[in-house]
Amino acid sequence: MTNTNPARGMRDFLPADVRKRNYVIDIIKEVYESYGFEPLETPAVENIETLTGKYGEEGNQLIFKILKRGEKLRESRESGGESREQETPAHASPLTTHDLSDLALRYDLTVPLARVVANNRNELPKFFKRYQIQPVWRADRPARGRFREFYQCDVDAIGSSSMVVEAELISAVSEILTKLGFKDFTIRINHRELLRDILVTAGIPPEKHSDALVAIDKLDKIGEDGVKKELAERGIEAAASQIILELFEQTRVITDSGKDVNRTIVSNLINIVSSEVLTEVGQIIQFSGNAPITIDPSLARGLSYYTGAIMEVNVPDLAGSLAGGGRYDGLIGMFGKEQIPACGFSLGLERILVVMDERNMFPTEVAAISVGVMVTIRSEESISKSLSLANELRQHGLRVLVYPDADKHDKQMKYASQINVPYVCILGESEIAENTVTLKNMQSGEKWENIQVTEAAERIAAQK
Amino acid sequence: MTNTNPARGMRDFLPADVRKRNYVIDIIKEVYESYGFEPLETPAVENIETLTGKYGEEGNQLIFKILKRGEKLRESRESGGESREQETPAHASPLTTHDLSDLALRYDLTVPLARVVANNRNELPKFFKRYQIQPVWRADRPARGRFREFYQCDVDAIGSSSMVVEAELISAVSEILTKLGFKDFTIRINHRELLRDILVTAGIPPEKHSDALVAIDKLDKIGEDGVKKELAERGIEAAASQIILELFEQTRVITDSGKDVNRTIVSNLINIVSSEVLTEVGQIIQFSGNAPITIDPSLARGLSYYTGAIMEVNVPDLAGSLAGGGRYDGLIGMFGKEQIPACGFSLGLERILVVMDERNMFPTEVAAISVGVMVTIRSEESISKSLSLANELRQHGLRVLVYPDADKHDKQMKYASQINVPYVCILGESEIAENTVTLKNMQSGEKWENIQVTEAAERIAAQK
Repeated sequence: MTNTNPARGMRDFLPADVRKRNYVIDIIKEVYESYGFEPLETPAVENIETLTGKYGEEGNQLIFKILKRGEKLRESRESGGESREQETPAHASPLTTHDLSDLALRYDLTVPLARVVANNRNELPKFFKRYQIQPVWRADRPARGRFREFYQCDVDAIGSSSMVVEAELISAVSEILTKLGFKDFTIRINHRELLRDILVTAGIPPEKHSDALVAIDKLDKIGEDGVKKELAERGIEAAASQIILELFEQTRVITDSGKDVNRTIVSNLINIVSSEVLTEVGQIIQFSGNAPITIDPSLARGLSYYTGAIMEVNVPDLAGSLAGGGRYDGLIGMFGKEQIPACGFSLGLERILVVMDERNMFPTEVAAISVGVMVTIRSEESISKSLSLANELRQHGLRVLVYPDADKHDKQMKYASQINVPYVCILGESEIAENTVTLKNMQSGEKWENIQVTEAAERIAAQK
Repeated sequence: MTNTNPARGMRDFLPADVRKRNYVIDIIKEVYESYGFEPLETPAVENIETLTGKYGEEGNQLIFKILKRGEKLRESRESGGESREQETPAHASPLTTHDLSDLALRYDLTVPLARVVANNRNELPKFFKRYQIQPVWRADRPARGRFREFYQCDVDAIGSSSMVVEAELISAVSEILTKLGFKDFTIRINHRELLRDILVTAGIPPEKHSDALVAIDKLDKIGEDGVKKELAERGIEAAASQIILELFEQTRVITDSGKDVNRTIVSNLINIVSSEVLTEVGQIIQFSGNAPITIDPSLARGLSYYTGAIMEVNVPDLAGSLAGGGRYDGLIGMFGKEQIPACGFSLGLERILVVMDERNMFPTEVAAISVGVMVTIRSEESISKSLSLANELRQHGLRVLVYPDADKHDKQMKYASQINVPYVCILGESEIAENTVTLKNMQSGEKWENIQVTEAAERIAAQK
């Protein structure tokens, strides 16, 4: 007997779970497609060099790496052992992760997209809008709502520097959340150059900027004092920290977002930040229509590849974000000869599901069994008749389950109640003789005896 | 600059590829659901012990294994190094795969299903029908139509020993292939006990049976002489090989299948095979209605977990099979206390796609861009107007792409032709002034100037 649980941080999805997930995914797809995004899929497994160096030091360590196979592994072991024998203590293995692994599991959907775009420059249109809904894997410590396998639902537009791109991404995500029933989400936006201007104003030297961003990114989680402490630990002077945090305080997101608030925030920043950046941020807000956007100068986003606008979607009852994204004009150039502008947004499926579950936001029918009717079997001799009946009902577009054994009638009916199938079609002795069926509504108990198959099919279909 | 190709044996799917795949997957899902199968999903990553020992020796070696992480890896390296130091040559690593790896990538969908059933015995109904369409990974040598990541589309019924199960699986698969446009497929069936009876009749001792099956399984690939040679290599006497191969010759599948042929085959086997097995095979054929079934006593199927009926679907122009399956009444018991009967069928998505592509079986619209109309941008000042127009068109259920930049009109139209969008909605100076649009049919060149948005939307929708 083996352990039958899924691996740590991974989950099995039983039918009701899958239906809920598909309900959300279908709405996401529908909206993405209505905005002109086309589907793309990439493999779960990437060459390890494709992923390393793209997610920062912390990200790097969370990548699941795949062991080399057969001959390759043997060679690495032998040559690795030979060349490093003398540098390492006798009891430790002389092999590095790099010696042992050549492949890795997809960590996000953005880096694979950048690779695909660089690899298919001639096949893809210059301006390319794609969506991608696939799982990613991170060797993170599992926690509430944090899994080691989770789905990302990404939209990205490649090949344009226009703020129309940011605005359409924001509109699409906003429309999705509205269609799912969210009424209280906020889209916070910021700009990496706005952050840089703030750091410069505070007197932080350029080589310390990424250190500062890592600390600032944690403001939501560890608060002002925590950020101050981490900034100090990372060698940033207290005076500079003070300036930054005061500025964030002045421009702090107020619960009711809106254009007026944004105007106030901009006026507080106007002396610090370059006018180009403020124009870009202003355009995004203008082009995004009614989406609930608030500028938040303290928003940093963890990933290192962002270069322009960054955005994040939050709801009051979730610590993390429902979605996040930004502009990354340098990433594709890391894979190809050409620098190609790009911008994307990623919805976190599991987070959306967690909040929707807690708030009871799913229509009741979503999780229900999809089978419309169960057909019974009278005896071994009538099995073929039951199977033909099932096929006839399927011809009417119904989803039909045939009870597989000639068990006692009561046992068959008990099973039908257990699985909550709405109707049972009974094929007993008299029905077979008369070429009819008896239909039972399992919820009301109502019964139509010895009716035609067509009538039964119509009654079942009408109830759906 | 990095290598931008996908990893060896893996593939990227550009939008037209994804649409073709989804076309096939949607038909598979629709039919599976009409037979009362419910969706299930399991994680890509499993504990390594879940997978090892389930697929035979060859299968075991094709499992992708994931490197342990951080502390775990360090511990394994150190203790592994210590304990085995003296047994291995100085230059080789003393670590085994087992020391280095704790997780592995899903190799098929059947073993994870068995684990899930054992793990959720109380939540799942006693008779449980599920479908699962997910990728699996095998570290096989890539070849035409053979990839390292590929999709399986599985249906399985758990909890019944009735041949109704086999028959419904066969009917469903047969209906799917027919809906996809296949007219020339054959479903070969056999029974593991029928094979066993043949081996016993030939005088092969039980301990040699699995060796014999491995060789017989290759009949399609290496022919009679090849099988003879491999049987000899595996220590099976020439006389026994002769008996088996003659029997296969007598009952060889003839191109036109059908009940008469099956009757002849059965009459040739009746003295060798137990009557119970022949009854089961007869029931499967009887219950499967019009599916094109042929008994093939030489069909062996590679996987070691089958216990009863086995089946495979072939078309003339493909060396391998389009689908395969069988009964595996012992597998779930390997995970739980209870022995639970089970039977399943798996469709190979990539093989189906390869044949459909080669035969041009896809409806032309499947691969076409899904966007219905592109909206142009007149100038920086009119961007908001173009975005509003796009939203208005979306309200009419259309898929709308907004050209992102205020480029020259010709450049925007050229892009529209490149991506093959069927309509362009032009928002120029006069249109903005009159609150109208100009619509262009990109294929016919027809133009409707300064019409109402609603009229434009209706014209686009009507053409779809």
